[in-house]
Amino acid sequence: MPYTPPLRDFAFILDHVVGFQQVRDTDRFAEATADTVQAILSEGGRLNAEVIAPLRRPGDVTPSRLENGEVVSPPGYAEGFRALADGGWIGISAAPEFGGMGMPQTVSTAFYEMMAAACLSLQMNPLLTQGQIEALEHHASDALKALYLPKLISGEWSGTMNLTEPQAGTDVGALRSKAEPQADGSYRVTGQKIYISWGDCDFTQNVCHLVLARLPDAAPGSKGISLFLVPKIIPNADGSLGQPNSLRVVSLEHKLGIHGSPTCVMEYDGATGWLVGAPHRGLAAMFTMMNNARVGVGVQGIGVAEGAYQHALAYARDRKQGPTAKGATAIIDHPDIRRQLAIMRAEIFAARAIAMANCVAIDMATATGGADWAARAGWLTPITKVYGTETGIAVSDMGIQIHGGMGFVEETGAAQFLRDVRVTSIYEGTNAIQALDLVGRKLSDGGAAVFAVLDEMAKAARASGMGAPVTEAVQALRAATEWMLGQGMEARAAGATAYLRAFARVLGADMHLRAAASGEGARVALARVYLDQMLPEYAAHLAAMRADPAAYMDLTPEDMTA
Amino acid sequence: MPYTPPLRDFAFILDHVVGFQQVRDTDRFAEATADTVQAILSEGGRLNAEVIAPLRRPGDVTPSRLENGEVVSPPGYAEGFRALADGGWIGISAAPEFGGMGMPQTVSTAFYEMMAAACLSLQMNPLLTQGQIEALEHHASDALKALYLPKLISGEWSGTMNLTEPQAGTDVGALRSKAEPQADGSYRVTGQKIYISWGDCDFTQNVCHLVLARLPDAAPGSKGISLFLVPKIIPNADGSLGQPNSLRVVSLEHKLGIHGSPTCVMEYDGATGWLVGAPHRGLAAMFTMMNNARVGVGVQGIGVAEGAYQHALAYARDRKQGPTAKGATAIIDHPDIRRQLAIMRAEIFAARAIAMANCVAIDMATATGGADWAARAGWLTPITKVYGTETGIAVSDMGIQIHGGMGFVEETGAAQFLRDVRVTSIYEGTNAIQALDLVGRKLSDGGAAVFAVLDEMAKAARASGMGAPVTEAVQALRAATEWMLGQGMEARAAGATAYLRAFARVLGADMHLRAAASGEGARVALARVYLDQMLPEYAAHLAAMRADPAAYMDLTPEDMTA
Repeated sequence: MPYTPPLRDFAFILDHVVGFQQVRDTDRFAEATADTVQAILSEGGRLNAEVIAPLRRPGDVTPSRLENGEVVSPPGYAEGFRALADGGWIGISAAPEFGGMGMPQTVSTAFYEMMAAACLSLQMNPLLTQGQIEALEHHASDALKALYLPKLISGEWSGTMNLTEPQAGTDVGALRSKAEPQADGSYRVTGQKIYISWGDCDFTQNVCHLVLARLPDAAPGSKGISLFLVPKIIPNADGSLGQPNSLRVVSLEHKLGIHGSPTCVMEYDGATGWLVGAPHRGLAAMFTMMNNARVGVGVQGIGVAEGAYQHALAYARDRKQGPTAKGATAIIDHPDIRRQLAIMRAEIFAARAIAMANCVAIDMATATGGADWAARAGWLTPITKVYGTETGIAVSDMGIQIHGGMGFVEETGAAQFLRDVRVTSIYEGTNAIQALDLVGRKLSDGGAAVFAVLDEMAKAARASGMGAPVTEAVQALRAATEWMLGQGMEARAAGATAYLRAFARVLGADMHLRAAASGEGARVALARVYLDQMLPEYAAHLAAMRADPAAYMDLTPEDMTA
Repeated sequence: MPYTPPLRDFAFILDHVVGFQQVRDTDRFAEATADTVQAILSEGGRLNAEVIAPLRRPGDVTPSRLENGEVVSPPGYAEGFRALADGGWIGISAAPEFGGMGMPQTVSTAFYEMMAAACLSLQMNPLLTQGQIEALEHHASDALKALYLPKLISGEWSGTMNLTEPQAGTDVGALRSKAEPQADGSYRVTGQKIYISWGDCDFTQNVCHLVLARLPDAAPGSKGISLFLVPKIIPNADGSLGQPNSLRVVSLEHKLGIHGSPTCVMEYDGATGWLVGAPHRGLAAMFTMMNNARVGVGVQGIGVAEGAYQHALAYARDRKQGPTAKGATAIIDHPDIRRQLAIMRAEIFAARAIAMANCVAIDMATATGGADWAARAGWLTPITKVYGTETGIAVSDMGIQIHGGMGFVEETGAAQFLRDVRVTSIYEGTNAIQALDLVGRKLSDGGAAVFAVLDEMAKAARASGMGAPVTEAVQALRAATEWMLGQGMEARAAGATAYLRAFARVLGADMHLRAAASGEGARVALARVYLDQMLPEYAAHLAAMRADPAAYMDLTPEDMTA
């Protein structure tokens, strides 16, 4: 099944939905003209369709494996990655002084959405490298930048993130890895890390690990964590490769999906590393990167959803079934199948538009330094992550269903989308953690950011001929936000997921209204589908949000058993 | 992770929710006393917990395979099946004259729920055999009954269902397999069938296939289909095994889940078979069996949901995570985790109660011949199938989420529940087909059956102190039913799934109200969780039901592309 890059949607969303023009109008991103962006996405789409998408299934069938302590990646990955690196795609948003394109994150995110659709397992690799580039750009010393950034941006080296330890998952503050300062300014890093994607790689010359660890004088908990750059092979000052470092891959996980991406247990045994950012400020540095990584993971969900949708659409056009009386017709003409496909498409559009609106806010914050833009980006980030990943899972699941029995047979590839995308609601902070972030840290401004977004939504709804249900929904959301602001932490935590989902539903409707305002028939019809079939869910979520948690918090262990 | 049979729920639901007493009060099922049923389920639970549950993971890791044209089942399956057969569990509801226990279907269904939780792949085998027993009891000649039923009930032989062909899935009427009458009263059956679960078996001496095929003078479409019994080995008149029949397993599917259950492509090449039921009436005969099989599949979903729930509950009690400030606590005490677990439990309870209410209606129809009972069973069947399987999928998915990163690692077993149960919304008529059945055939009585159910629900809601939202919901459902009755087939088809889901939500609330009427604190709390968090969804479903299908039916191929 060929993958068709969603170039029309990208262009439409940039122009008609998320106001990308304001990004172009900044000095920082003046080069991101309509023509340039179109050329980049079109060429990037071609690469993903022609070179990367054919790697999706081979990586599932022939997973990455460990041989003599080194990762052997699936057939074709090395060539695919080389095409990616040679095209300059790893550094789309990286600084031009180190070899990057300097494009807005909106553009790199669209590229990574396409790559996620094409082959999520391989996409993980440059996505993580991009995150590391960003972290180093913001927090590393000039010497580290000069040594590492050109190699990472060119794809000669790759990057990883090392946070989790067996006892420290969601609670990163519980980590125990240690770093001891050496006389030469370096550190000796010791500890075990788990769930390290692409912890080793056979198609880059070096693998650079960003590792969270504690200095000897560190406070307990999350305030005593520092960030270190620990390369697999210690580079010489001129960038050539020196001695192997004291680290190794202990084992790979056997996973539900993304088989092509090696998920490593890493052992650091006094490995040489360098401090990135200030001592004990590692989590703050990691969070800069993680916020954008969360957008990236949300967009992984959207990309896989698009892949699964195209796959199901092609099957539905091809597969003939009764009713015999009328003669067999393609199943796409059966109302229930068509309804499902339309919902899939409407969901993807909404999630994609939200992600791009999020990226525009990030780019505007970068270009202007505006705190309002940063707050808006911060508000949208957990929504992008949750809505994107839940859309990825739901759409892939519907894709299986549309295939009928063939959906359960692995050869069709429908099931792989679900198996691959299932991890996205877990990693980079589980979706529950995103919801807690939304109603906790992101509401700590007293609601300034959210009320600004709600005002915009109300305005767009009033301006739309089909906006009445959205106007009502925005009012309900405003009341729900005020309710949330009045609650203590337990009630906020209990209602967080429901609140986030309600917000996402209404925000999705807002995006569709903006699209419908173009007057294009297909956009209006898709908005109709969303308003009719998806928007009404917000009320159920808000009812669930207000549920008294005592009903379940007071259940005894015996009550929980059938 | 040990499996704990949900014996308390079974007993409570039978006594307090679904009125099993009326089944006991019939002559037909007078032996199903409280003590007997309790003894059966307790002993059946022990077998599933101790003998069958340990086979779940081995069958996933070592799938059934084809060797020299014969299926080789996973390690331990033969011994597990033998324990099952020796205990008489295959014929719980079968006629005593052929060796069955003669118990109500309510009892056998509870047993099969437990077996689905323990090992879905192995459960498929006796479940299909039970379906065949039922079909033969109702439709086969006395000679066929006498020859086959004792062997099937004892577990010496096993049974399969052969409907689907590559071009004939949902549209069974498109099938092409042929049967030619022979002088001795037998038939020669020729054709290819796909998706045949346990199409071969190495732990039973014979495999008996029920095959849909066309006689030479058959009308086209679904009116020209007959049903044949085609054994792997042709038995002699005394039940001993004679010559191998002309049929073979061509290949096995490589599937997302239920790896232990071999899904066969079968080739019949002039195989000898015997007609079951009247010529050209095969679909009617198959449907008798399929209606109950649909309940059975719904209950597979419920069983797997219970397994996944117990697995997640144990993990949530064991796994410690922050907030570090307070010290690490088990994650079950985090509100979002507890909320999810409570929803899982509330969903399982509702789905289980609906399935048992369905079985009570089936048993009452069997015992009394009452058309009202049969109509009630017919109404509930698609709801049991869809709600049960969607609960299986949703709960298994939540189970993965609760495990965090460990949920994506296959060794924990959390992912297997989802992979296994995913097929249940597809086979035995996809869930969309169930919804079409509900708003089509099951409403062809003008709503008599549904309005009777709605009246009961309204009465129970009025009688409950917490029934107000259910009263409102039942009114909305009544209006929706009237709306549906006024629509033509396209609008019914378009709104069918949404209507079914709305009905299931309200019926689930009805079951919880009945449970809460017991006054037991835990039952009231669980009802509260359901009414607060799940019931409100019905309104969104009803809004979606009323959506004008033109919005998506009129989309052009280009409109469907991003």
